[in-house]
Amino acid sequence: MLQYYGECAIVSYFSAMPGNTIGQSLVLTTYGESHGTQIGGILDGMPAGIDINLDLVQLALDRRRPGQSHLTTERNEEDKVTFHSGLFEGKTTGTPIAFSIPNKDQRSKDYGQLKDVYRPSHADYTYDTKYGHRDYRGGGRSSARETACRVVAGALAAQILPQISVKAWVSAVGPIALKVPTADLDLDGIDAHPTRCPHPETAGKMEAYIEQCRSEKDSTGGVITAVALGVPVGLGEPVFDKLQADLAKALMSINAVKGFEIGSGFAAAEMRGSAHNDAITEDFRTATNHAGGVVGGLSNGAPIEVRVAFKPVATIGKEQNTVDKDGKATVLAAKGRHDPCVVPRAVPIVEAMIQLVLADHYLRNLKYTR
Amino acid sequence: MLQYYGECAIVSYFSAMPGNTIGQSLVLTTYGESHGTQIGGILDGMPAGIDINLDLVQLALDRRRPGQSHLTTERNEEDKVTFHSGLFEGKTTGTPIAFSIPNKDQRSKDYGQLKDVYRPSHADYTYDTKYGHRDYRGGGRSSARETACRVVAGALAAQILPQISVKAWVSAVGPIALKVPTADLDLDGIDAHPTRCPHPETAGKMEAYIEQCRSEKDSTGGVITAVALGVPVGLGEPVFDKLQADLAKALMSINAVKGFEIGSGFAAAEMRGSAHNDAITEDFRTATNHAGGVVGGLSNGAPIEVRVAFKPVATIGKEQNTVDKDGKATVLAAKGRHDPCVVPRAVPIVEAMIQLVLADHYLRNLKYTR
Amino acid sequence: MLQYYGECAIVSYFSAMPGNTIGQSLVLTTYGESHGTQIGGILDGMPAGIDINLDLVQLALDRRRPGQSHLTTERNEEDKVTFHSGLFEGKTTGTPIAFSIPNKDQRSKDYGQLKDVYRPSHADYTYDTKYGHRDYRGGGRSSARETACRVVAGALAAQILPQISVKAWVSAVGPIALKVPTADLDLDGIDAHPTRCPHPETAGKMEAYIEQCRSEKDSTGGVITAVALGVPVGLGEPVFDKLQADLAKALMSINAVKGFEIGSGFAAAEMRGSAHNDAITEDFRTATNHAGGVVGGLSNGAPIEVRVAFKPVATIGKEQNTVDKDGKATVLAAKGRHDPCVVPRAVPIVEAMIQLVLADHYLRNLKYTR
Amino acid sequence: MLQYYGECAIVSYFSAMPGNTIGQSLVLTTYGESHGTQIGGILDGMPAGIDINLDLVQLALDRRRPGQSHLTTERNEEDKVTFHSGLFEGKTTGTPIAFSIPNKDQRSKDYGQLKDVYRPSHADYTYDTKYGHRDYRGGGRSSARETACRVVAGALAAQILPQISVKAWVSAVGPIALKVPTADLDLDGIDAHPTRCPHPETAGKMEAYIEQCRSEKDSTGGVITAVALGVPVGLGEPVFDKLQADLAKALMSINAVKGFEIGSGFAAAEMRGSAHNDAITEDFRTATNHAGGVVGGLSNGAPIEVRVAFKPVATIGKEQNTVDKDGKATVLAAKGRHDPCVVPRAVPIVEAMIQLVLADHYLRNLKYTR
Repeated sequence: MLQYYGECAIVSYFSAMPGNTIGQSLVLTTYGESHGTQIGGILDGMPAGIDINLDLVQLALDRRRPGQSHLTTERNEEDKVTFHSGLFEGKTTGTPIAFSIPNKDQRSKDYGQLKDVYRPSHADYTYDTKYGHRDYRGGGRSSARETACRVVAGALAAQILPQISVKAWVSAVGPIALKVPTADLDLDGIDAHPTRCPHPETAGKMEAYIEQCRSEKDSTGGVITAVALGVPVGLGEPVFDKLQADLAKALMSINAVKGFEIGSGFAAAEMRGSAHNDAITEDFRTATNHAGGVVGGLSNGAPIEVRVAFKPVATIGKEQNTVDKDGKATVLAAKGRHDPCVVPRAVPIVEAMIQLVLADHYLRNLKYTR
Repeated sequence: MLQYYGECAIVSYFSAMPGNTIGQSLVLTTYGESHGTQIGGILDGMPAGIDINLDLVQLALDRRRPGQSHLTTERNEEDKVTFHSGLFEGKTTGTPIAFSIPNKDQRSKDYGQLKDVYRPSHADYTYDTKYGHRDYRGGGRSSARETACRVVAGALAAQILPQISVKAWVSAVGPIALKVPTADLDLDGIDAHPTRCPHPETAGKMEAYIEQCRSEKDSTGGVITAVALGVPVGLGEPVFDKLQADLAKALMSINAVKGFEIGSGFAAAEMRGSAHNDAITEDFRTATNHAGGVVGGLSNGAPIEVRVAFKPVATIGKEQNTVDKDGKATVLAAKGRHDPCVVPRAVPIVEAMIQLVLADHYLRNLKYTR
Repeated sequence: MLQYYGECAIVSYFSAMPGNTIGQSLVLTTYGESHGTQIGGILDGMPAGIDINLDLVQLALDRRRPGQSHLTTERNEEDKVTFHSGLFEGKTTGTPIAFSIPNKDQRSKDYGQLKDVYRPSHADYTYDTKYGHRDYRGGGRSSARETACRVVAGALAAQILPQISVKAWVSAVGPIALKVPTADLDLDGIDAHPTRCPHPETAGKMEAYIEQCRSEKDSTGGVITAVALGVPVGLGEPVFDKLQADLAKALMSINAVKGFEIGSGFAAAEMRGSAHNDAITEDFRTATNHAGGVVGGLSNGAPIEVRVAFKPVATIGKEQNTVDKDGKATVLAAKGRHDPCVVPRAVPIVEAMIQLVLADHYLRNLKYTR
Repeated sequence: MLQYYGECAIVSYFSAMPGNTIGQSLVLTTYGESHGTQIGGILDGMPAGIDINLDLVQLALDRRRPGQSHLTTERNEEDKVTFHSGLFEGKTTGTPIAFSIPNKDQRSKDYGQLKDVYRPSHADYTYDTKYGHRDYRGGGRSSARETACRVVAGALAAQILPQISVKAWVSAVGPIALKVPTADLDLDGIDAHPTRCPHPETAGKMEAYIEQCRSEKDSTGGVITAVALGVPVGLGEPVFDKLQADLAKALMSINAVKGFEIGSGFAAAEMRGSAHNDAITEDFRTATNHAGGVVGGLSNGAPIEVRVAFKPVATIGKEQNTVDKDGKATVLAAKGRHDPCVVPRAVPIVEAMIQLVLADHYLRNLKYTR
């Protein structure tokens, strides 16, 4: 234990909130509270000389922003990203790319009712216990607003890998599940419907279900499926940094995610080896893709396919039993503007985390190749 | 790009296999190929002065070893761990704990048939492509033998946290699923049956199914469920290092794992917020535990509950279509001794990875608390 | 090596410039080019609930800024730092502290002459070779302007450790060396003279020498000495992360530094053990401090004392022989406003790096202590 | 702060001793106490397919071992390294290379007198304070025995870079300094004399001085100079991971080192810019090398030249004033076999740390180059 010369005492602190960094060769660090003046980040490790289309970055951000359709929260936040370094005349310079997004529409008064109440399935109580305070105005760092920075970084990372295409879409909303095989979907039509489900009939049912949840002051969960096409053979490492492990960490770090599958996922547990194994064909491809594009922790060149489960939004208008800061029972019916279903807006976040992981492993892997 | 004075040329290499390290405050690095002389590891960051019961470590290892029951591979490897540093008179000294396990039963001849063939759903082709070679005798670093080192480290990590109890069990084998709620299971009886399913009736059915798969030269997948009891409030960080994200990475890094869920998992996607939210009671606990013990990325004091899906073992005796190194079609019927179902032996591995993640976050979290 | 399905080619890049991060528990990442719109950084890992005096941060920055005295460059950059996150009502919240400093006075025209010339003892040629470009307007990331961000972070870090006092001063300028023992210096009077030498007579001679160098269109090197008082016993780790090793890395990462000493430094090489050993007294202190406050890699409670050597500024008005981008011999006499001697302005940078290392090790060390 | 459900209390620990790892792309972790059964390490990140000559590794180790000449300690430890993984048929496989060295000659009785006494200029008191215990038998992790593992790793790292030659030699012992310019030395003759000074006349004087110190039961410090030839242009990063910063950290982490210089070092502080600048010649080389091979944090292709100062060995036979564990004054005259001067044996350690840093940066730098 520390001991001092003289009279000095050891100072005791509440915890910090580290863990704001992800990636190894391509490293994203984010900052900013939901109700501060801005959020932002630094993306370090971008190779020099890459052409960057900033419109693609803003476009990704627009797909995540609140108020983009009648299905999302009514908050109309126009998220405009500004870049402060690392870019010159349309190209990366190799230096860290810093960026920020102002927080514009901060209606703090909406949150007054939450000052002394611990919301069910929120981290209010754990924050007070661990950090000695919490930001009742909107979650501080635990707010999903932080994910806007991930979208910016993912859209930059994607431009390292023009040969790889990452597409995510909504494959379930509550009990409404998309039953069509991936190969039969029009992945260019994902944004055609505000639900981001590329199957119009299912999308219509999802929309109706979301509207019903909203009208009942309730919320619903959902599932996002994503594929990455054009991934080279050999991304990932054989032991702890298996590609599926790093994808799982990245995607499970998105707010409200409760489950992750790659390839056959939980269905694999019910299968026989003779049915699950992907036969190798004479071009070193596979006849099926139960593996979801990863074997032994390394990409095998087949499409990477993952599924991510989101729980329903915890903040709802319906009355719920809870307690206040003193542990006294109370009833909470949340005011304010909240999405009844986050999955349509979470699609670009899922894409961004996959893009970051693939670009990171791509750059890690280039290390010794010439 | 690098440039030299004089005549020197840049040397070109095949890739290394980094990523042999996990953890931040409690750091495990493993080494060793399945068919080398030994495997082992270094566990760095163990605080000084902790009582260590080495019998508990060997016990955990015995639960993972091949040949422990009629359900597993016939290889009878007696895995004996030796410690080389970091322990003195039954206590940790704070220095790195190094350990090794000899590889005894290396019947390389069993693997001769695999020298020139790429096995379906194995990483043979990706290894050859990325590293310029592969260890056809048993996978080298991609072999599940590496997980013996994780079990050693997990059993050490668990002794930092005597107040936390981590229990894993087999909850599904192929189509045979355990339907009994966790609260009604006898978690002290997990090892009573070789399947490690703590419900005798279901365990019997699982056993019969595994035997059937073996007799048909086939294999089956399965699911392991795990709980951690006694976890303090506040483990985890709010952004990328959410507790569920680090658990997901650790568990998805186990060979053959294809899916991960925490709490309600994929079922959450079908639920309404009003049904999913865990009401907070007057003792700051929760009436239900759909969260699985984690809110906002931090433990909330409720039991942490996760589920992990394992695909069926890829190496089977049945004939499969594949190709050789030259891409020529061939048929493979694997010889050698392989488990028809790995989940009973994977139970201590799942426990170990959870123990490592919890101990790591516990030590990270102690940082500023006094 | 990477191999692709289909037609995709591997893209080849120039290097990135990673390594913009320092620290383990208290982590600083900086960004920004000398001639971009702003520079800034993120300081992650500040415990929650610490009182922060922002005036002390600006004060430290003012001590580093150009144009603060007649001895420094004539550029009068008013460096005003703005904070974007991590602070609320005068206290840290535990979240990352992001900050930025606008670049105001960018007279790029001064640099036009350097576009095609490789300056002696600058990294122009190595940058062009490694990154495929360089920022001739002022060095980009290699510019000492980046150190302003270190000063901000150091002044924040210092407020974790109010019991520790870090003081640096100029102890040599060219051949003019301060011969007075540290114990006899008035360390509160460092800023009384623009040279930041706390001995008025020596300071006067240094000032005259710097003016002479300027008048001769030349520059001079110098030495900064620093002490840290009130450091608790036990900071540092015994092997690679010895306290002196991390101090050396931090201080040698400052532009223009060519040497580092702790305690007796190079003089120790000439001494006998019987003369060098610091006898331990009955209060567990030491009678002398040749160790400079660190034994076995750990602080022993005595003052930490280090010395840092700065080379003369490379950009001078005098004519020098060099080559242009095509390797053709040319003569360069640099225009623009450059310090003839950087050590007076480097004093707060040295203090900042020491504060960052001590705070980082302090937080690392608190891990298991209660 | 952590809070628990139920009755559990937070456990309080003494510190761990982390920091046993160095490097980023080429990562060395070491373990083992001086009086345990063995020491060893894991070197992770070696690319696959590199030819390794194990005799060169043992040769490097033999140059470090005690008892190799009449100038060193009389302990005759035969350090034989064994490799456990990562090598196959004379080549690296890309997997982690684990190795160990048995501790043979552990005469613990020599250390009995030190059990209750705090040795001057040792970390006994700081260890007891921080870790709650110390290994009085020989320092545990703080013992220089740990450096044998560095020598093994350095000798492996060197074989990644056959085009680079790293040579270190003794350039001062106490007041006896080598005055001959590096260019005039026979660097192939370093091992011709037991002092490892490549200038026979100076070597003889050093030898006599060391013998005199031994006969007076005293010790002496010294200086090691090292050069690296054939280093490509562009190793290092511009900000915190400057090549000289990482070299300084690596070399200052060697036991007993008190000072580090690169190129002109402290002499630079006395020089004018016009004299110090290295003029660039038409082949993009430099006419002089005051930079010591590094500009702007990056190697420029010129020889890298560094100097490292070692303090005299603290354990001496002469009587010294100190205190026991209770703070009571006592007199200590150390028994046992200790080197009067460590610098001859430290030569391979200095070389190893430089080889590790250069190989690490080489592999980091290859990342994006093709």
